[in-house]
Amino acid sequence: MKNVDYIIKADHLITMEGDLSVINDGAVAVKGDSIVSVGTFDNVSAEFSSDKILGGKDKAVFPGLINTHTHAAMVYFRGLADDLPLMEWLEKHIWPAEFKWLTAEFVDDAIELACLEMLKAGVTTYADMYLYQGVAAKKLDKIGMRGVLFSGVIDFPWRDYAQSADDYFIKGEEFINNWKGKELITTGIAPHATFTCNPDNYMRAKELADKYDVLLHTHLAETQFEVHQCKENYGKTPVEHLDSIGFLSERVSAAHCVWLTDKEIDILADKKVGVSHCVESNLKLASGFAPVPKLLKAGVKIGLGTDGAASNNDLSILGEMSTASKLHKAVAQDATVVDSRTALLMATQNGADIIGLGEKVGSIKVGKKADLVIADLNKPHLIPIYDIYSHIAYSMHPSDIETVMVNGKILIDNGKPTTLDNDNVLSNAKSWQKKIIG
Amino acid sequence: MKNVDYIIKADHLITMEGDLSVINDGAVAVKGDSIVSVGTFDNVSAEFSSDKILGGKDKAVFPGLINTHTHAAMVYFRGLADDLPLMEWLEKHIWPAEFKWLTAEFVDDAIELACLEMLKAGVTTYADMYLYQGVAAKKLDKIGMRGVLFSGVIDFPWRDYAQSADDYFIKGEEFINNWKGKELITTGIAPHATFTCNPDNYMRAKELADKYDVLLHTHLAETQFEVHQCKENYGKTPVEHLDSIGFLSERVSAAHCVWLTDKEIDILADKKVGVSHCVESNLKLASGFAPVPKLLKAGVKIGLGTDGAASNNDLSILGEMSTASKLHKAVAQDATVVDSRTALLMATQNGADIIGLGEKVGSIKVGKKADLVIADLNKPHLIPIYDIYSHIAYSMHPSDIETVMVNGKILIDNGKPTTLDNDNVLSNAKSWQKKIIG
Repeated sequence: MKNVDYIIKADHLITMEGDLSVINDGAVAVKGDSIVSVGTFDNVSAEFSSDKILGGKDKAVFPGLINTHTHAAMVYFRGLADDLPLMEWLEKHIWPAEFKWLTAEFVDDAIELACLEMLKAGVTTYADMYLYQGVAAKKLDKIGMRGVLFSGVIDFPWRDYAQSADDYFIKGEEFINNWKGKELITTGIAPHATFTCNPDNYMRAKELADKYDVLLHTHLAETQFEVHQCKENYGKTPVEHLDSIGFLSERVSAAHCVWLTDKEIDILADKKVGVSHCVESNLKLASGFAPVPKLLKAGVKIGLGTDGAASNNDLSILGEMSTASKLHKAVAQDATVVDSRTALLMATQNGADIIGLGEKVGSIKVGKKADLVIADLNKPHLIPIYDIYSHIAYSMHPSDIETVMVNGKILIDNGKPTTLDNDNVLSNAKSWQKKIIG
Repeated sequence: MKNVDYIIKADHLITMEGDLSVINDGAVAVKGDSIVSVGTFDNVSAEFSSDKILGGKDKAVFPGLINTHTHAAMVYFRGLADDLPLMEWLEKHIWPAEFKWLTAEFVDDAIELACLEMLKAGVTTYADMYLYQGVAAKKLDKIGMRGVLFSGVIDFPWRDYAQSADDYFIKGEEFINNWKGKELITTGIAPHATFTCNPDNYMRAKELADKYDVLLHTHLAETQFEVHQCKENYGKTPVEHLDSIGFLSERVSAAHCVWLTDKEIDILADKKVGVSHCVESNLKLASGFAPVPKLLKAGVKIGLGTDGAASNNDLSILGEMSTASKLHKAVAQDATVVDSRTALLMATQNGADIIGLGEKVGSIKVGKKADLVIADLNKPHLIPIYDIYSHIAYSMHPSDIETVMVNGKILIDNGKPTTLDNDNVLSNAKSWQKKIIG
C-alpha cells in the first residue's frame, strides 16, 4: 500500500479525458503536486492509502477551471461604469480610471481580490493581459494559484511605467527572465490590439516570444470598430493583417474573435491560433456574437475567458459556460450546438491547451498537476441529477464549489481561502473603492 | 414610539419606487403582513421600534423577485434532456416523461423543491402554468410563498386528469372557486398555446376568467414553428390570431413573445398584454431573441420568467436579469439597452404588474405586503460597489441572498428555510430521480 497526500472521493468523477465518460464512485490520489492515480475508489484505495480523504458522497470532482482571458486587477473597477457604448465606456470611464489608478500598488492589492473570487469559483489558472505582471507573479506565487501572465505592449506611453514602446519590451523581457522556470507562473508577451499596436510592435513581441520560447496573446477582431479601423489603416481585416505580417502561430492565443470572415476562420485554424471566447463581455459591451460553432467545425481550439470584471461583471467561468452554451444555440437556431460537454471542455482541457498548459493541467490524469475542484451537489438547484455535465454547464453556481486544489495544495477549504486573508482582502478593496469614488 | 414586528436595516435600500434612487442607511418597518414605514434608518427608528432588527451593515434590501413564467413541478426533470432540437426534446423526452410521471403526488413533492430553490434565490412570487394547481396552491399556502397559479388547458386528454377539453375547464373553475380570496394564492386559467388550443378553448378560458375576474396566461410566439403552424391553421401570426378571436386584454400575460412583427408589438401594447420574457429558456431551446428593446419602446410591460427548470436549468431570476441585460445589448448592437435598472424593474414591479399583483407587491412602499429580500454584499464578487443596481443585475448569485420574507413572514433565515425541511425536500427529490431513471 503506497501512502499519498490526499485521496479525493467523488460520486461523479469527471476527468475530461478520453470519451468523457464519468467515473461513478471515483477517486483521485494526489502525491506532492501531482495526480498519481485515477479510477474507481475501490481500485485507487486498493493501491493507495492516505490520512486525508476529501470529497465523498454527493460530490463532483472535476479539473480546475481555466480562465483564458482577463485583466485581473480591473476587478477594482467592477461596476464602475455599465450600460454605456463601448467607446464612451473606454474613453470616458475605464481608460481615465486606469490612467489615474493603475500602479504597482494597485495591482498588488487588486490581484488578491481577483484571485479570491476566481479560486472560490473553481478557477485554478488564469491568463492575464496587463501591466506590472512581475507584481502579479509574486502575488500568485505567494497565493499558490497558477497564472499565465502576459506583459502588455501598446504604442503609446503609460504614466511612469513606460515612456515609449521600448519600455514595454524592456519590462516584458525582464519579467520573462525573472520568472523563467517557475512552476506556477508562465510568462508571455501581449501586444494589446491592432488599433493600439503597430506592426513593428507586434513583430518585436513575436521576436521576444521566439527568443525565450514563451507565449503570445492579443485582443483580436473584438468589435466592428476594430475591423473598420484595421481595414482603414492596413487595408486588411484584423486576422488577415496579423497573418500578413507573420505574427500568427501556435504560440498565439487571441481573445474575442467576434468579427471573422470565413477566410479568417480558416487562417486561425491553419495557423493553430487558440481562441479565448469571452461571451459575457462580448454581450455586455454589445460587441457581438463570436462564431463559435463555425470555429469549432474548422478545428480551432477554444477556451473561455471572463475578460476584466468591469465588462462582465464577475470572474466566474461557470457563468461563461452557461451563457456560451445557451447563446450559441439561439444564434445558430440549433439547440445541439455547444453542448454541455463541449462547454466543459472549453473551460478545462481546451482552455489549458490554448495557453500552453495542456500537458500539465486541464484534465484529471496520472502525471498531471493536481489542479482540482470539489463541488457539493446536495443543493436544491442541483437535484435531481440525470447528467452531471448538464449540471456543471447549466446549473452550478460558484458557491457550490467547496474545495479547490492547485498544484497539490488546498487553496479553498470548504469555501474558505487558506492562503489569503478573506477579511483583509475585502477591507483593502473597500479602501480602494473609497479612494476611487473620491 | 410604535412597536412593529421587524425593522430591516440596509446599507443600500432599493425600493423600486419613484426615480429608483437608493436610500443609503435605510430601513423598512414591517407590521403583520405589511410594510408600515420606509426611509432612512434614523427617520424610521424615530417613529418605530422593534425587538427584531434584521439586516444592517453590508446588506442590500430589495423587493422579492417575481418569476412570471414557470412550470414549477418540472424541476424534477431538470437536466433530463439537454442540447436537443426543440421538437425532439419535447416529443421524445419531456412529453413522455410528463405523461408517465405527472400526477398529483408528483406535483405535491416537486413543488417543494421548486419553492426551496426559488426562495433561496430571492424569488418570493412565481406565476405557474401547469396541471394539479389545487395541489400546488395547498403546498404554497403551507410554505407561505406567493403564487399566481394558472390552471392549464389543452385540446387533448391527459391521463386521468382530463378525458376531454371540458375537464380542464371543470378542474379550472373548481380551482378558482376553492382559492377565491386567499392572500397568497392568485388563480387564473391558461390555454397552453396556439398549436395546442383551438380558438373555442381560448375563448372558453376568457369567458371563465371574465366570469370570476381572474387572470389569463398563455405561451405566445415562442418559436418559428409555432408561427408557421398558426399561419397554416388560421392564416394569421399568433398575436394577430389571438387578437382576431378577441382573446387579448389587460387580463392576459403571455410568455416568450420571441417572433413578433412590428404590427404584433403594436397589438400587444394596444391591448395592454403583459409579456413574460424567458431569455434563458429561449436561448437554450434555440427559440430566438425576443425583441425586448422594441417592446419596451412600444410601452409593453415586461416581466422575467425562468420557464421550467428543464429548459433553463435553474429557477433563478438573478440569472435571468444578468442574461437579459447582456444579451439584448449584443442583439441591438447598443450597450445602453436593458440597463441594470430596467432589468431590476422587470424582475420586480413590472413583473408584479403583468401578473396582476402590482398594487400588492413588486416594490417597497408603505401599505404594500412585506415581500423582501436581504442580500449580503460582503463577498469577493460584490466588492467594490459603485452602483448597487449593477451588482444585483450583473454580479449577484443566489447564495448571496441571506433572508427572504413573504407577507411579513421570514421563509429563508440566513440561508435556511423556516417552513420547508431542507433534507426532506432533497431526499424526496432523490427518490423521484431513482424512479424516473428506472
